[in-house]
Amino acid sequence: MPVNLQHPSPESVLGVRGIRLGVAEAGVRKPNRKDLTVMLLDEGTQVAGVFTRNRFCAAPVQICREHLASGQAVRAMVVNTGNANAGTGVQGLTDARATCEALAHTLDLDPRQVLPFSTGVIMEPLPVERIIAGLPAAVADARADHWARAAEGIMTTDTVPKAASRQVLIGGATVTITGISKGAGMIRPNMATMLGFLATDAQIHPSLMQQLATDLAEGSFNRITIDGDTSTNDSFVVIVTNQAAHPAVTSWSDADGVVLREGMMAVARELAHAIVRDGEGATKFITVRVEGGRTAEECRAVAYAVAHSPLVKTAFFASDPNLGRILAAVGYAGIDDLDQTGINLHLDDVHVVVGGGRNPAYREEDGQRIMGRSEITVRIGLGRGEACDTVWTCDLSHDYVTINADYRS
Amino acid sequence: MPVNLQHPSPESVLGVRGIRLGVAEAGVRKPNRKDLTVMLLDEGTQVAGVFTRNRFCAAPVQICREHLASGQAVRAMVVNTGNANAGTGVQGLTDARATCEALAHTLDLDPRQVLPFSTGVIMEPLPVERIIAGLPAAVADARADHWARAAEGIMTTDTVPKAASRQVLIGGATVTITGISKGAGMIRPNMATMLGFLATDAQIHPSLMQQLATDLAEGSFNRITIDGDTSTNDSFVVIVTNQAAHPAVTSWSDADGVVLREGMMAVARELAHAIVRDGEGATKFITVRVEGGRTAEECRAVAYAVAHSPLVKTAFFASDPNLGRILAAVGYAGIDDLDQTGINLHLDDVHVVVGGGRNPAYREEDGQRIMGRSEITVRIGLGRGEACDTVWTCDLSHDYVTINADYRS
Repeated sequence: MPVNLQHPSPESVLGVRGIRLGVAEAGVRKPNRKDLTVMLLDEGTQVAGVFTRNRFCAAPVQICREHLASGQAVRAMVVNTGNANAGTGVQGLTDARATCEALAHTLDLDPRQVLPFSTGVIMEPLPVERIIAGLPAAVADARADHWARAAEGIMTTDTVPKAASRQVLIGGATVTITGISKGAGMIRPNMATMLGFLATDAQIHPSLMQQLATDLAEGSFNRITIDGDTSTNDSFVVIVTNQAAHPAVTSWSDADGVVLREGMMAVARELAHAIVRDGEGATKFITVRVEGGRTAEECRAVAYAVAHSPLVKTAFFASDPNLGRILAAVGYAGIDDLDQTGINLHLDDVHVVVGGGRNPAYREEDGQRIMGRSEITVRIGLGRGEACDTVWTCDLSHDYVTINADYRS
Repeated sequence: MPVNLQHPSPESVLGVRGIRLGVAEAGVRKPNRKDLTVMLLDEGTQVAGVFTRNRFCAAPVQICREHLASGQAVRAMVVNTGNANAGTGVQGLTDARATCEALAHTLDLDPRQVLPFSTGVIMEPLPVERIIAGLPAAVADARADHWARAAEGIMTTDTVPKAASRQVLIGGATVTITGISKGAGMIRPNMATMLGFLATDAQIHPSLMQQLATDLAEGSFNRITIDGDTSTNDSFVVIVTNQAAHPAVTSWSDADGVVLREGMMAVARELAHAIVRDGEGATKFITVRVEGGRTAEECRAVAYAVAHSPLVKTAFFASDPNLGRILAAVGYAGIDDLDQTGINLHLDDVHVVVGGGRNPAYREEDGQRIMGRSEITVRIGLGRGEACDTVWTCDLSHDYVTINADYRS
C-alpha cells in the first residue's frame, strides 16, 4: 500500500501544448500489457536530461547522451517497460539504435532526434522486433490528453501511476507544468529504472536548459532513496515546448523566473516523493533534514547515511523509537572531525537528543507517539555551521524482502 | 540458523598462558544472564587495539583509546553486555571510568591499566552500580580455561558463541593463539557492538604491536559486512603475553614471523567469518572477490558495493540468479572511468558475464544451481589492473527485518 498516494484522475493531469503521448501493447515481456509509450514533440521544443551515474549504464542511456550531444532537436521519445536493455553489450546499443531508427522513419525524422528509454530486467536481450512492430500503434494512439495513460504505460511494478500538474502565471500567460514518473531502480530493482519526464509549455531561453534539468533533479529525484541502489537506467528529462504566449524566461532570478522554477520544482518534487511513497513495502514516508553543517555536502552525507541505514529503516517500520540507531548513522557518515557533543535530534516536534546525549526531558512515549505516524520528519542538528540539506526515504519492511526475493518468479 | 557454524566445545578452545577469564551475572539489563566478563593479564603482557571509526563512538571506546595512549601496561579488561554506554554524554564517560577504577582497586592496579568494553542498547544510562557490584564475582571466577565461558559471556543476541584456537611452532616452541568474538553492531544492531579479542602467548617485539592489530583487523573484521551499519562500539584487541619459550619475533618477513602472523590471521578470520555466519537472518555465506583492479582500494569499493546492495542480498536469499543486480552494484561503486566492456563475473565456477554482457554459454540453470548453495563465491573481474580484494557477507532475509524490527520489545 503506497503511503498517502492517490491514483491520479485523468482530468487532473493537464495537457501541455506541443506534446502528444501514445501507448501500445508490444508484448515486450508479457502479453496484454501497455508496455510501449511514445512522446511526440512539436518543432521548437527544447529537451535536456540528466542520467544515471552508474558506470554500468544501460544502452538507451548511452544513446540518449549521444543524441542529446549531437545538437539535433529532439522530436520524439520512446519508452519500453519489461526490459532494461542493460548489461547487454554491443547488441544492446544496436537494438536501442534500431528502435530510434524505426520511430524516426515513421515520423520522418533523423534518428538522433529520438531518445530511447528502457526499464525492466537487466541482462536479457531486448526483443527489438516486437518493440518496432508496436511503434505504429503507439504513434496512432498519440493525443495531448494522454498523460495519465502514459503514466500507466511507463509503470512496471509500481502500484500507482505517478503524475502531477500545476499551472502558474508567467508574464500574464497561463503556463502548464506536467510530469510523470515511475518507480526508481532503487525501489523497483529488477525493473531497474527511475524514469521522470517533466514538461512545460513555458518559453525558456535554450541556454538555461541543461542547468535547469540538473537543478530540478538535484532538488527532487536526487534527494530520494529507498535502499541506496543506483540503477543502470535512471533518467530525468525536462521538455520545454515554448508555446505559451509570454516573453521567454532568461533568468531564474527575476520574478517570472522564480515563479516558473518554483512551479517546476514543486511538480518534480511531487513526482519524486510519489516514488518514495510507492516504494517497495513502504509503510512510512520519512523526511531527513540535517541542519547546522559546515557545507550542504556534509549535511547530505549525514542525511543519506541515516536514510540508507537498514537499522534505522527497520526501526521506523516497527514504530520503535530505537533512536540510538540514528546517532550511530550520523557517526559513520564520514565527517571526520564531528564533535558528538554538538548533536541535536528532533523527531517531528519531540526533542530527543541534546548535546549528543539523551534529552533529560525526552520520554519514550513521546518518541513512540511520533513513530506511529505515517509521515515523520527526522531533524538532525550538527551544531557546526549554517548549511542544511534534506533527503526523503521510506522504511524497510517485510514486504521489501518479499518483493525483491520473490518477484522475478 | 547460523550458516555452517558449530557451537565450540570447551576443550577445543585452548588456554593462553598468562590470561585468566571470569564471568558473572550482574543484572545489567535482565536478571540471570552472564553479562559481565573480565580478562586478567599477567605482567609482561602487551596489548594493542583498533576501534570503530564511528564519530559517535561509545564512552568505553574513548576510554580505551585514552588508557592505551597513556603508556600504562594493560593488565585487565572488563566487558559488559546489555548496554552499549553510547550516546550517553559526559555521564557515560564518568561511568566507564568508574568501572575501570573499581576493577583496578580490586586488583591493585592503576585505573589506566584497565580497558572497558560495553555492548548493548544505545542511549540508555549504564547501570554502573550493578556492574561494579558484579566485579568481585567475575574476578573470583577467573581461570585460564574459561575462554569458551567468556565467549558466552560477551554474547548478546548471537545465537552461537564464537571462539577459535590454533597452535603453531615458533623457534621450536609451541605457541597458542586463541580468540573470541561477538556479533557485529552491523549484525546485532541494537546490541551495537562487534567485539573481538585475539590472544597469544608468543613473544613479539613491542614495536610490532599496533601495526599487527591494524593488519589483523584489516584482513578479517574490516572485511566483513552485514548491512553496512558501522557500530558505535566496535573494538578489536590483540593480547600478547610473551610467555612462550622462543626468541621474540621482531619481523613479519622472517620464517617465524610469517608462521605466527598467518596463524593469528587465520584465527582472526575464523572469528570474523563466524560473525557473518551468525548474521541476523543469514542463510548464506557469500565471498565477494574482486580482481583485475588498478588498486586494492577500488577492488574493495566494488566488493562492498556488491556486499551492501539490498537487491543483491535479497536475490541470494531467494536463490534467484538475478545477476544483473551485481552488475548494477559494480557500476555504482564509484570508479568513474570504469569500462563496462571489461567486466567479467563468475559465480563459483560458472562464467556468467563476459566483456560486460551475458556470456553466450551461460545458462540460467547453471546460475540457479550455484545460488542454491549455502556458501557462494562471487568473483568479479574489472579488467584494468592486477590488484584484488575480498569481502565476506551474508544474504538479507525476512528474519533480518523481523529481528531488527521486533527485537527490542
